[in-house]
Amino acid sequence: MPDCRFPFEKYPVVTLAHGAGGRFTQQLIDDVFTAALTEVQKDHDGALLRLEVGASERLVMSTDSYVVKPLFFPGGNIASLAVTGTCNDLAMCGAEPGELSCAWIIEEGFATESLYRLAVSMAETAAEVGARLVTGDTKVVERGHGDGVYLNVTGVGVRRLVCEPGLIRAGDSIIVSGDIGRHGCAIMTQRQDLQLQSPLASDCAHLWPQVEDLLPLSENIHCLRDLTRGGLATALSELSQSSKLQMTIETERVPVSESVSSVCELLGLDPLYTANEGRMVILCSPQAETEVLRILDSGAAVIGRVEEGQGIVATGAFGVDRVLDRLSGEQLPRIC
Amino acid sequence: MPDCRFPFEKYPVVTLAHGAGGRFTQQLIDDVFTAALTEVQKDHDGALLRLEVGASERLVMSTDSYVVKPLFFPGGNIASLAVTGTCNDLAMCGAEPGELSCAWIIEEGFATESLYRLAVSMAETAAEVGARLVTGDTKVVERGHGDGVYLNVTGVGVRRLVCEPGLIRAGDSIIVSGDIGRHGCAIMTQRQDLQLQSPLASDCAHLWPQVEDLLPLSENIHCLRDLTRGGLATALSELSQSSKLQMTIETERVPVSESVSSVCELLGLDPLYTANEGRMVILCSPQAETEVLRILDSGAAVIGRVEEGQGIVATGAFGVDRVLDRLSGEQLPRIC
Repeated sequence: MPDCRFPFEKYPVVTLAHGAGGRFTQQLIDDVFTAALTEVQKDHDGALLRLEVGASERLVMSTDSYVVKPLFFPGGNIASLAVTGTCNDLAMCGAEPGELSCAWIIEEGFATESLYRLAVSMAETAAEVGARLVTGDTKVVERGHGDGVYLNVTGVGVRRLVCEPGLIRAGDSIIVSGDIGRHGCAIMTQRQDLQLQSPLASDCAHLWPQVEDLLPLSENIHCLRDLTRGGLATALSELSQSSKLQMTIETERVPVSESVSSVCELLGLDPLYTANEGRMVILCSPQAETEVLRILDSGAAVIGRVEEGQGIVATGAFGVDRVLDRLSGEQLPRIC
Repeated sequence: MPDCRFPFEKYPVVTLAHGAGGRFTQQLIDDVFTAALTEVQKDHDGALLRLEVGASERLVMSTDSYVVKPLFFPGGNIASLAVTGTCNDLAMCGAEPGELSCAWIIEEGFATESLYRLAVSMAETAAEVGARLVTGDTKVVERGHGDGVYLNVTGVGVRRLVCEPGLIRAGDSIIVSGDIGRHGCAIMTQRQDLQLQSPLASDCAHLWPQVEDLLPLSENIHCLRDLTRGGLATALSELSQSSKLQMTIETERVPVSESVSSVCELLGLDPLYTANEGRMVILCSPQAETEVLRILDSGAAVIGRVEEGQGIVATGAFGVDRVLDRLSGEQLPRIC
């Protein structure tokens, strides 16, 4: 971690005074949270954006709050998750992640050094995708409220690709960008303190680089959707509802790693409903299928096809069909 | 309140399932939170913005999370406060509030009907200033975490006025747009359950309409700053630090209502440090003073002048000077 002049020994934990908007708040912002910002615009409680929007272009905005527990998990932490999560939502709208805000709700008593680790991680994650963190906010709530840190990251970006459920057509291929369920399983093994032979890391990662690589195929890319809370089944169910078409998948073609399979079996989870933070489905014309697979990582796979009808039909082993619904209740609370 | 088809009797409180991203979350969004949105763009986890940015214009972005307690208070609630607060931050950057996102962190067990009241109030408050609420997010945390509702509102808008601490000059007039301390006092009387003869309401209100009225004087308006956490003294202290100039004020010219005076005396608060949510200071050329006062409501007053030097000097009764510092610790936790 880069050096930090914040007096961690004198103030090892956040106090309510750090949230009162006075000198303590300023010190926390200057010494700790500035590490998260790409460019410090000190004089205002807002930031001038650099986004350049051409006459034919449109801006996209997306927001997410993050309440994941634990705050640090194999493959990421709440801050890296918050940046990738919001940037991925922009990417799924076809927008290049441009500028981001971050707003921290911190529980009194939270370690200031952990806060700094999170701020640094946030900056690194934004830099990975070329997004700029330009403005922020800090609130502190009393001990026992909140839960360490809750984080909001909101982003704006310029749309580079028009893709939406309304463009999905019967006959489209359904492609998943990699194996599913890693994020949910990584969080659950951490929470349950399961000792695995090969530790399972979250798939938490930016999707924009893959979307950018797909831009030359834009005519044939109809819709993108990241798999988050509720997993692949919930994402496909939403797409079915929006497009008024049926999503037919062959469950045996859905890539699931051995470790995810084992954890799911152990904990009674269904990988199809387990959370991801670095995977998407691509709905595209069948003639673009091979090219999409070539562009994406080797983990990508065609898992099914769009048909007239509604809902999701999953064809499993021995050709038995089952109808999948979206997650109705909770599978894993506070997964993101 | 407009009718709502959400089954409040069946689901009187929010459950963890409402935060899991599945069918329950969708119902909460469709039936409750949609009331908050100006335009529903259902198909994406982000919204296309309508903001039109000309070649010579710049976009501004601002974010704030709100953790105010109690959630409903005289003169407002957490949702109206969140919308005015973020829109005011944009206005202080000279930007017209354009498009907003809202992100809710809800405690399990929170009344769904209260949530709907908040969503409706949010929509009304955004409409007042012509801002558009275009996208949102919902998370639910376990009972005992959070505190009813925490809310983030992030906004973007087009800059109409260039104003910043760097433009402040020695000789500038310091004008406050109305009497101070109402928000802090309203919250405190509510929290302490004080019975006042004349109930005190928060000053929670949009500042953009006043800023818009001042646009014809843009050459002479050097800086705007809203008075929030930490009050007038903290705002002036920050401006002094950023501009490297001294703010000299005559405390007897600072407008304070009788009820705010009494409450402050009773609770041992200093109105100069008490929070506001609908007041700003305007730093302008002295020749614009009269015109600014004419444009603002009758409550506005010239309270001092910018001088060479640093810090805030407050001249009180009998001409005694005292040096004010920014709030160093906490005066009122969770005031916004």
